Parts: sequence; structure tokens; C-alpha cells
Amino acid sequence: MNLLLLDRTEIDADNVATITDVRARHIRQVLGAEPGRALRIGLIDGPAGTGTVVAIDDRQVRLACTFDEARPPLPRVDLLLALPRPKVLQRLWAQIAALGVGRILLTNAARVERHYFDTHVLDEATYRPLLIEGLQQARDTRVPRVSVHRQFRVLVEDDLDRLCPQATRLLADPAPDSSGDACDALETARTTSDARVLLAAGPEGGWNDFERRLLISRGFQPFSLGPRTLRSDTACIALLTLVHAALSSPRPRPRG
Amino acid sequence: MNLLLLDRTEIDADNVATITDVRARHIRQVLGAEPGRALRIGLIDGPAGTGTVVAIDDRQVRLACTFDEARPPLPRVDLLLALPRPKVLQRLWAQIAALGVGRILLTNAARVERHYFDTHVLDEATYRPLLIEGLQQARDTRVPRVSVHRQFRVLVEDDLDRLCPQATRLLADPAPDSSGDACDALETARTTSDARVLLAAGPEGGWNDFERRLLISRGFQPFSLGPRTLRSDTACIALLTLVHAALSSPRPRPRG
Repeated sequence: MNLLLLDRTEIDADNVATITDVRARHIRQVLGAEPGRALRIGLIDGPAGTGTVVAIDDRQVRLACTFDEARPPLPRVDLLLALPRPKVLQRLWAQIAALGVGRILLTNAARVERHYFDTHVLDEATYRPLLIEGLQQARDTRVPRVSVHRQFRVLVEDDLDRLCPQATRLLADPAPDSSGDACDALETARTTSDARVLLAAGPEGGWNDFERRLLISRGFQPFSLGPRTLRSDTACIALLTLVHAALSSPRPRPRG
Repeated sequence: MNLLLLDRTEIDADNVATITDVRARHIRQVLGAEPGRALRIGLIDGPAGTGTVVAIDDRQVRLACTFDEARPPLPRVDLLLALPRPKVLQRLWAQIAALGVGRILLTNAARVERHYFDTHVLDEATYRPLLIEGLQQARDTRVPRVSVHRQFRVLVEDDLDRLCPQATRLLADPAPDSSGDACDALETARTTSDARVLLAAGPEGGWNDFERRLLISRGFQPFSLGPRTLRSDTACIALLTLVHAALSSPRPRPRG
């Protein structure tokens, strides 16, 4: 836990937070904090800041909080992900939040099994703590917005323009004809302030032809991770890593 | 399973392989293969090729094998990894093999707990099937060489030059002074055929100052994944992804 996330309801009118749960135990046992110790904190979906321990005992920790003026920027990437197996998704929630996404759109696809939708891993009560865990790891405060879409075609044709307007759309594809256009599109996004990227990552076994064609017809540019085919969860982490790196890379430096 | 890996001992003098285990079940039940079907195969640590089903029943599958002349190239990256928690390492084996490394050097570090070394996850009988699983996913045949080093300093000072000679050495570091030298080093490695990269990834909580200084004194160039601190397993996947992408990226194209 590199940043302690607090909910607005935990903070009183004098900006003192009282926490009693696993975070209090972490502060006592892992950080070994004593009164006076300053901790990095953040308000869920709000600014980061500093919490100074003012009281600590076996039951609770009280922190005097000050916050930055601005909240951290929303990660510039949104993820359109074919719904993984529940066991895989359970592991991915925190990792996706740590890597940084604004939105997670989970969708059906031909190679997604129907029973994947009948899982508690899609309940907000299950995934929200995992997203928070990932944010606390990565020192972010902005909780990704999650939506579940049982009809791929309705999502792509009717809803996507509203949910993710004006994003550069990229389609991870094991064997595209050319990744050149996607590189150009990413380069354009990188040099355009506030430009967003919507990244589509398929199911184990990939999108089928209909899905691939529909995505491409709606502006998704195919690009490849390279010749090695990765498991969908590994691919998801690798793709988010590459897109973030491309968006944040410095302009090429002149070489002597 | 995108490529079926065979051991040399499974193939008879007429180049017919007889398999009876979980791979046979995969060929029957997942691929639904019948006689005449050609499957992508590979020889462990040897060439890839094609296996044509010549007989299939509930007990076994027999494949007539032909192999390419050359074996696939060794991945150009080696990984020096502070030993993760057993549960994390168990999950990482297949993913590391799928991403592609030549060697995995697992090392002690100040923030590695001693009991991590007392685990069956470090037994070859446990990890080899997981490495093979990752190779079959990524269509590779070259099994990463694994070694375990209980003394960090002895490894870095005495053994590393022999185990990983002449590699470009990179050190993942949350907050380096500058990543510029590492970028230059990677660019040099990219444009040098057969150049190898040795990537050092620290434990949860990072290398301590002594370890970081020792690595830097032995030629490791620090570079950062960016402002978000990742869990060590997520970081490991992200780092291998970035180094492979840097090594395989096309030369920058002129822009109009």
C-alpha cells in the first residue's frame, strides 16, 4: 500500500479521518507508524494529500488530513475487454487499476462462455475493493468506471461513441496486415494533449472474423504484440503497458 | 496450446510421436482432430515443425513429425529476478516463458523473506511443466534456463559475468535520476545483432540502497516504468514487454 485511500464519509468536519479496518492494521503493523508520522493519502476520486497520525491504538488510527488542490489526471487509456474467465478477472482487477485505466468495458464475444457472466467477480462489492487495492499500489485515486455489456454488437455500434467519445481506437490483433497505422495513431494521440486511447483486447482464442471486422469498421486500428501469442491476462497487462509507454514517451532525442 | 511440444524420447526412429497424456486429450477434445489433421509441433529445445495425425483413439495419439532445419532463436532477454512469494512465482513461470527469456536467475535480496526459498515452486518438477505451458502458448521451443542464487552479492560480483556475458544490463528502478542512458543502451542493443539484455527486477518493496548501488557499479543502468508503482509480478510482465518491444521496434520512420 503506497497510498492510503480514504472515503469522504470517513473524514469529519475538522479534516480528521478515523479508520478501523485492514488499513489501520497496515499502518500499525507494516508501517509501524506512531503519532506525528506523515502518510501519503488520497481521497477516493479526489485529490492526493498527507495524513499525519494524531492518535493510534489497537482499535483505530486517526489522521489529520490535508489535500492537494487538484486531483490526479484520469489515466488516458480505456479498456474494452472481452470478459475473461472469473478466476482470471479476479486476478486482473487490481492489476488493471494499478496500470491505469479510465474505464473498463467488459463485453461478450463469440469466444466468451456465457456462464462467465454469472459470477460474483462482476459484482461491484467484489471488484471495487480490488480496484482500490490496485490504486493504493499505484498511488492513484481515480477509480476506473466499470460497465458490463452482454451484447457486443449493440455496444460497438450504439454505445461506444457515447461512452468513449473521440478516442484513438486500437485493436490488439495477433496478426494484423500492418501495425503502421496504429503506430501513427498512437503518435498522434501522444502529441495531442488530453487525447484518449480506447484499447480493445479479445478473449482467449481471439475475436472472431465478424467481431474483428466490426471493430475495424468502427475505427479500431489493428496492431500486434509481436510473434508470441500470450494468454489473455498476460496480453492485457502487456498491452496496457505498451500503450501507456507510447503515450508518455519523450519525443525522440537527436542522436550524435 | 498453440504449439504442441514433444520430448525427443517420445519420437521413434520413423519420426512418429506417440503421446498419451493431457496433450492427447487436448488434441481429441479441444482440437477435435482426426487422422490427416496437421498440427503445429515443436521439439523441446529443438526446431518447430508439423505433426500429422496418423492414428487417434481414447488411449493415445500418433503423429508423423517433420521438423524445420533450424530451431527458433533464443529470446534476447535474460531476467534477474528477486525471488517472489511462492504463490506469485507459481503464477509467473508460464507468463515469463510465454513473454520469452533465455535465462531466469532467481536471487535473494534484503526484502526477500528467507522462507520463500523453501518451496516446491523452486523444484524443477514443479516449474518445468509451467515453463513448457508458457512456451506452448507462445509457440516457442526454447526452455528458459533457471538458476537459484541465495547470495545476491556472490551472484552479482562473481557469477554474473560468466552466466550472462556481454549483456546490456538494465535495472528497473521506480525513481532513477535519469532513464536516458538506459534508453541509449537499449537502442544500441536493438541495432546490434545478437546483443542480449539482462534485466534486473527487484522484490516487492524494491532493492535496498546497497543492492541498487552494487548493481549500478556492475554496469546496470537504471530506468523507470513511470510514476505508477506496480506489484512485483505485474512489474515483471510490464518490464519484459517493454524490453522486448524496444528490441524489436522498427527504426523510427521519417515523418512527413
